[in-house]
Amino acid sequence: MTNPDCIFCRIVAGEIPAQIVGRTEHALAFRDLTPQAPTHVLVIPTRHYASAAEATGDDGAAAMGEVMRLGVQVAEELGLDGGYRFVVNTGPDGGQSVHHLHLHLLGGRRMKWPPG
Amino acid sequence: MTNPDCIFCRIVAGEIPAQIVGRTEHALAFRDLTPQAPTHVLVIPTRHYASAAEATGDDGAAAMGEVMRLGVQVAEELGLDGGYRFVVNTGPDGGQSVHHLHLHLLGGRRMKWPPG
Repeated sequence: MTNPDCIFCRIVAGEIPAQIVGRTEHALAFRDLTPQAPTHVLVIPTRHYASAAEATGDDGAAAMGEVMRLGVQVAEELGLDGGYRFVVNTGPDGGQSVHHLHLHLLGGRRMKWPPG
Repeated sequence: MTNPDCIFCRIVAGEIPAQIVGRTEHALAFRDLTPQAPTHVLVIPTRHYASAAEATGDDGAAAMGEVMRLGVQVAEELGLDGGYRFVVNTGPDGGQSVHHLHLHLLGGRRMKWPPG
């Protein structure tokens, strides 16, 4: 269930390097290359879903739950005791740039409102 | 698993009115009272978790997955074909204001980056 043209699938496969900060059987967390906060990590399912909208059915819901769970775990391991924000973008209006479902974990500063 | 002092638990119980736009067995979606985009919906688990950080274990991951799944479903039903953003705030740095886990669904405009 990987896509050879997908940069995140290639990170999962170890073909492209990334600064990995956490992993479970079905999810991987690594540093964003253009951080928007002192801590900015991406958490992805290892299986390729083009977006949250494509993560349908029980498998998709389980993948999203596991991604969020790993996000919480990484936030704690990285010491984000003051809190953090999760962001998932879908489609052009959401600002999605890579078409593999991913959760942004942002922390280390006070996040503003509205969220973009 | 409800908290009588929690405004979102009281919405689940029907004690406080809300403009409900979707529901499943374990999740509820309703309009945010201070919208930050043309469409701004909150999606919550019906069970009380104070935050994502408190949604631990398999139950918590399942709740988060179901919340995201309902978010996708509501986005489609509300016609957000151009895309949308999910945001989950945890703690002060995240900007969490209500201490019942909730996902913001924002759409109907082009969301900006960084996300707050």
